[in-house]
Amino acid sequence: MKILHGNAIVGQSGGPTAAINATLAGVIRGALDEIAAGGAIARLYGMRNGVDGLLREEIVELDALFAEDPAALDRLALTPAAALGSCRRKLPAADTENEAEVMDKLFAILEKYDVRYFFYIGGNDSMDTVAKISAYAEKKNYPIRVVGVPKTIDNDLIGTDHTPGFGSAAKYIAVTVQEILRDTAVYTVPAVTIVEIMGRDAGWLTASSALGRLVTGFEPDLIYLPERAFSYEEFYADLKEALSRHPNVVVAVSEGIHLADGTFVGEGTQSGAVDAFGHRYLAGTGKALELAIKAEFGCKVRSIELNLPQRCAGHLVSATDIEESLEVGRSAVAAAVSGVSREMMTIQRVSTEPYAFTIGHEDIFEIANQTKYVPDEFINERGNHVTDRCLIYLLPLIKGELYPAYADGLPCHWILK
Amino acid sequence: MKILHGNAIVGQSGGPTAAINATLAGVIRGALDEIAAGGAIARLYGMRNGVDGLLREEIVELDALFAEDPAALDRLALTPAAALGSCRRKLPAADTENEAEVMDKLFAILEKYDVRYFFYIGGNDSMDTVAKISAYAEKKNYPIRVVGVPKTIDNDLIGTDHTPGFGSAAKYIAVTVQEILRDTAVYTVPAVTIVEIMGRDAGWLTASSALGRLVTGFEPDLIYLPERAFSYEEFYADLKEALSRHPNVVVAVSEGIHLADGTFVGEGTQSGAVDAFGHRYLAGTGKALELAIKAEFGCKVRSIELNLPQRCAGHLVSATDIEESLEVGRSAVAAAVSGVSREMMTIQRVSTEPYAFTIGHEDIFEIANQTKYVPDEFINERGNHVTDRCLIYLLPLIKGELYPAYADGLPCHWILK
Repeated sequence: MKILHGNAIVGQSGGPTAAINATLAGVIRGALDEIAAGGAIARLYGMRNGVDGLLREEIVELDALFAEDPAALDRLALTPAAALGSCRRKLPAADTENEAEVMDKLFAILEKYDVRYFFYIGGNDSMDTVAKISAYAEKKNYPIRVVGVPKTIDNDLIGTDHTPGFGSAAKYIAVTVQEILRDTAVYTVPAVTIVEIMGRDAGWLTASSALGRLVTGFEPDLIYLPERAFSYEEFYADLKEALSRHPNVVVAVSEGIHLADGTFVGEGTQSGAVDAFGHRYLAGTGKALELAIKAEFGCKVRSIELNLPQRCAGHLVSATDIEESLEVGRSAVAAAVSGVSREMMTIQRVSTEPYAFTIGHEDIFEIANQTKYVPDEFINERGNHVTDRCLIYLLPLIKGELYPAYADGLPCHWILK
Repeated sequence: MKILHGNAIVGQSGGPTAAINATLAGVIRGALDEIAAGGAIARLYGMRNGVDGLLREEIVELDALFAEDPAALDRLALTPAAALGSCRRKLPAADTENEAEVMDKLFAILEKYDVRYFFYIGGNDSMDTVAKISAYAEKKNYPIRVVGVPKTIDNDLIGTDHTPGFGSAAKYIAVTVQEILRDTAVYTVPAVTIVEIMGRDAGWLTASSALGRLVTGFEPDLIYLPERAFSYEEFYADLKEALSRHPNVVVAVSEGIHLADGTFVGEGTQSGAVDAFGHRYLAGTGKALELAIKAEFGCKVRSIELNLPQRCAGHLVSATDIEESLEVGRSAVAAAVSGVSREMMTIQRVSTEPYAFTIGHEDIFEIANQTKYVPDEFINERGNHVTDRCLIYLLPLIKGELYPAYADGLPCHWILK
């Protein structure tokens, strides 16, 4: 493989996570090492707001920013959300009308900055961007190595054991649910607490709420994932049984749970709420269940939507996740320099006990636009909880604690000016 | 003051906090020291679920539990929620029909266990309990020293500079809002994020969301507290102005904000949502504003209710708060032994820069059933933000970080069997 000399650029895309900046810090560290060694990479740029900003030529000199302030890299690694900004832009598909217009503009900017290494940190949609840029570069014979660096709290990318960002979100959920279990246990009056957790298609995050089973012995009474059809009838039966055992019942549900006919529970058909114009009221999955339980059981019920903090709680991250996220970023640079392109970096689990992993990469065209669901053997037969096997898979990913530095009571984030 | 020999009992009451167990740990430490020194207190009992459990004679031998496992006291101090359980029972008022029935039963149990020291950790309603037990003991000439130990995340008790438990909730909110500010800043599309924060009557917690102003320079664009009447018209004007400055607008509101006529915004009159029976839909304050903004501005909008984690996030507490909470508990024992009764322990601020405090106590009859509101000089003229003076008062209370011990990725809580 011949050495490809030139500059590198990195961008972030899709929903933020608590670890996507750790991956960015890994790419920066990898590139700065390569620059310092006088290797293939001469300069490292960052695109603001992903390809959206790149098309507007909004480019940051990351090498200069961090070469003069190395401590900032540690701060960046523990800053939540996407420090470079993000976007949700989908590049035009091959051979569509405006493909040439958009892609030629993008490649003209890459050429202007002599970019030969393109790193894109993101989830499923971002891997689609990586695939399209790879394909267009080949079509136009533009020499560039394009590497996708995965991140998503949803853990729904195939080809990798799990995704950077997932472990920290799972840890935040597992810890917060332990705290909610402590809180809801203080009263003796029968009460149901619904915890709504992110995940439209895949239930990985919701499954993580049960991790206490392996550690503290406490976990939600019931868990419902989008991988199984939800039935109000079975749910009421499950709930009745749980309430007969103890007064404080906690139920964890994925936002994406739906009935057998595909209707989302969050559409609130059961609760029947409508807005001023008679439209169905999209109250959210937890709220819809809260209203339904109130109508059916008449008992005290509350719903808690964990919401954005699931993906941005940088104050409580998994050390395993942050270390892997950094390593995946650094390895992406090493892989690209050694000739890898059109690939997404992956994490391969070597062993679970003790936990060990290696970094690999897979053909981006095999990976993009597919979803990894929670497998059948991770869900119990009744479809109202997860199995031990699921929790044994998940546990290593939330281990270890890393905390950002604080000044005057608040965390010291790295913020791009 | 003659020495009163006998046993002590402690209970927790009202809503849980992340620091109420630190206060309990302080009471236990104080009592164990007194017992070890052969002082006035012979034994320390705990009541399960406050006076509710006491009336059912559900009593725990706290001295034995912790004397044999001293490390457990440190674990207890960093465990969220009320480890002894809580209740919301209001004791009968003086000279009402069932006063004698309930109170005689309660005092018979106290006498059976030779209880001469009664510590009750709680908020406003719990101080009412302390007042009633004090009054009845005097009426019946039952020698007992009754001391209220304050806790409430709401910071709305009078007679004390602030309440134990508030600092940790305020820190959780201030940190989480910083993270939400990072998260919502990643996109360039105009969007409004509403953060709903606890506080029916007083806006202390919502005010804390602005603490970034003094530290990071980032804070919510707009803040609305229940101390000022809320006007949709002014809100829309404020929001329009904020959106003209930058695309990502964050608004923090107390759950208790209401219109000039007293209607709670959370009642959703503006959003017009009704349930299947045409009843007004109680979607919550944030959700009501979300719907109203969507209708008025048509822009992207989301609401985040911080919900229970505000009061039970033991994974991120204020070191200042935990240390004060412990100290208030320990001081309550010392005060009672020295003759104090019918009083609530208080925190008196000695100086703000550097921050220093002392522990005092105030007549419970002067304190119970009153509310401390955010004062006028802490709110700006327009009523859509807080002043620097407010933040200078708040900042010391969130300083310092304490973290629970973790095992296998989850916090080690102390749980009563």
